[in-house]
Amino acid sequence: MYSHKIRVRYAETDAMAVAHHSSYWLWFEESRVEFLNTNNIDYSELEKKGLFLPVSESYCKYLTPAHFNEVLIVNCFVTKIGGASVKIEYDIINEKNQNVAKAYTVHPIVNEQGHIVKMPENIKKEFQKILE
Amino acid sequence: MYSHKIRVRYAETDAMAVAHHSSYWLWFEESRVEFLNTNNIDYSELEKKGLFLPVSESYCKYLTPAHFNEVLIVNCFVTKIGGASVKIEYDIINEKNQNVAKAYTVHPIVNEQGHIVKMPENIKKEFQKILE
Amino acid sequence: MYSHKIRVRYAETDAMAVAHHSSYWLWFEESRVEFLNTNNIDYSELEKKGLFLPVSESYCKYLTPAHFNEVLIVNCFVTKIGGASVKIEYDIINEKNQNVAKAYTVHPIVNEQGHIVKMPENIKKEFQKILE
Amino acid sequence: MYSHKIRVRYAETDAMAVAHHSSYWLWFEESRVEFLNTNNIDYSELEKKGLFLPVSESYCKYLTPAHFNEVLIVNCFVTKIGGASVKIEYDIINEKNQNVAKAYTVHPIVNEQGHIVKMPENIKKEFQKILE
Repeated sequence: MYSHKIRVRYAETDAMAVAHHSSYWLWFEESRVEFLNTNNIDYSELEKKGLFLPVSESYCKYLTPAHFNEVLIVNCFVTKIGGASVKIEYDIINEKNQNVAKAYTVHPIVNEQGHIVKMPENIKKEFQKILE
Repeated sequence: MYSHKIRVRYAETDAMAVAHHSSYWLWFEESRVEFLNTNNIDYSELEKKGLFLPVSESYCKYLTPAHFNEVLIVNCFVTKIGGASVKIEYDIINEKNQNVAKAYTVHPIVNEQGHIVKMPENIKKEFQKILE
Repeated sequence: MYSHKIRVRYAETDAMAVAHHSSYWLWFEESRVEFLNTNNIDYSELEKKGLFLPVSESYCKYLTPAHFNEVLIVNCFVTKIGGASVKIEYDIINEKNQNVAKAYTVHPIVNEQGHIVKMPENIKKEFQKILE
Repeated sequence: MYSHKIRVRYAETDAMAVAHHSSYWLWFEESRVEFLNTNNIDYSELEKKGLFLPVSESYCKYLTPAHFNEVLIVNCFVTKIGGASVKIEYDIINEKNQNVAKAYTVHPIVNEQGHIVKMPENIKKEFQKILE
């Protein structure tokens, strides 16, 4: 498990004065990048080798609205590793310890042509170390 | 069923040169607003009455990447009506008739305090007319 | 002069219930792409040839706030053509005929390495046809 | 002067594989909020009192492209204080000490109706302490 802190930007709010539902994907992505980086999977390095982890599936349950300037903790977990994809889950908690959102994303590993490829053994190994 | 046309903005692409996964939620939202408006549910009017349809749940399966300047058709369907929420499904198709994405969103009806309220009969009636 | 219509998306609003100042750049960009396309400068085609028109300078004066679902007209003008850059100006007008914003962007022409290059004669010619 | 650190998000890049010009406004805003907060001007508190600092004018010169995952330092300065507005300037520097962008924003102080109001003395005093 990895916990990443974000602060809600003004630009991420909408006319309901809460964070817009699309903003959450920016937080999940930022958290995921830091999560993987902390676990020896540097996404920038992966890209330089022509490997990418796009999103093929995403789900989010929005539980408590988030407001401008609130600090949120995004907890990240690897919950499934396939031959060519991984599933990452997220729990967002606010400062009052309320559940803000629960979500997951699925990431195939693809090459520069966008074709799904077998996950390199060293990457798979790093993912397995952090599989819950 | 309602079909809404969007064109992929440059700002909606990312360093993989395809539309970023968060951009799709902007297209679903724009399409949903037009879809409801075409069916006598004017979201701006609803807000003036203190009623809102936030997103409580969202799912998307990304099937074919979308590129800058591509024209996409977002087909929208109401597939479920509860006492206080509706489920809307989306199919995005590109100009080559490929499936770009399949998705759904769930919308409770809430008041200005963010509390879930019973759906007004006239709104429910309009939703029922377009239930698939 | 070219007029492009946009409609304010919910995601483009912020907690002040007006369009966020960063959203305007998305409208200017969408309008600019359509403006150039209408005048034989297809930005997607330009990119395929390894030429890009990034933004090197931008200015905006925000005059009247824009709200969710409002229809805005973005008027675009080419006001200056240099050997390696163009200046485009924008006027946004709302349905009540109020000035919403006045802005400009400057665009050098660069290659895939990001180096400024001389503008191809055929592109320059098209820009000159629409110079105000 | 105040220095705020940001890291370029993947979602903030575009098909040129650099940060999109609209993303910079999100960084300036996040930096400005932290800058003011550090100097006893809590923007969330200001809003609770019905006072807002929208953007009435913005300018940016883009000097060196920014890439995914790069760490940038946003230096913020108050450079002008009027009776009802402030001007804030920004310098973005990357890890190689290159100038990424220079920008400014102008902020009138407005009430909930969006009308420009005289700046409260205590707020003006805090701004004057940090005027360059």
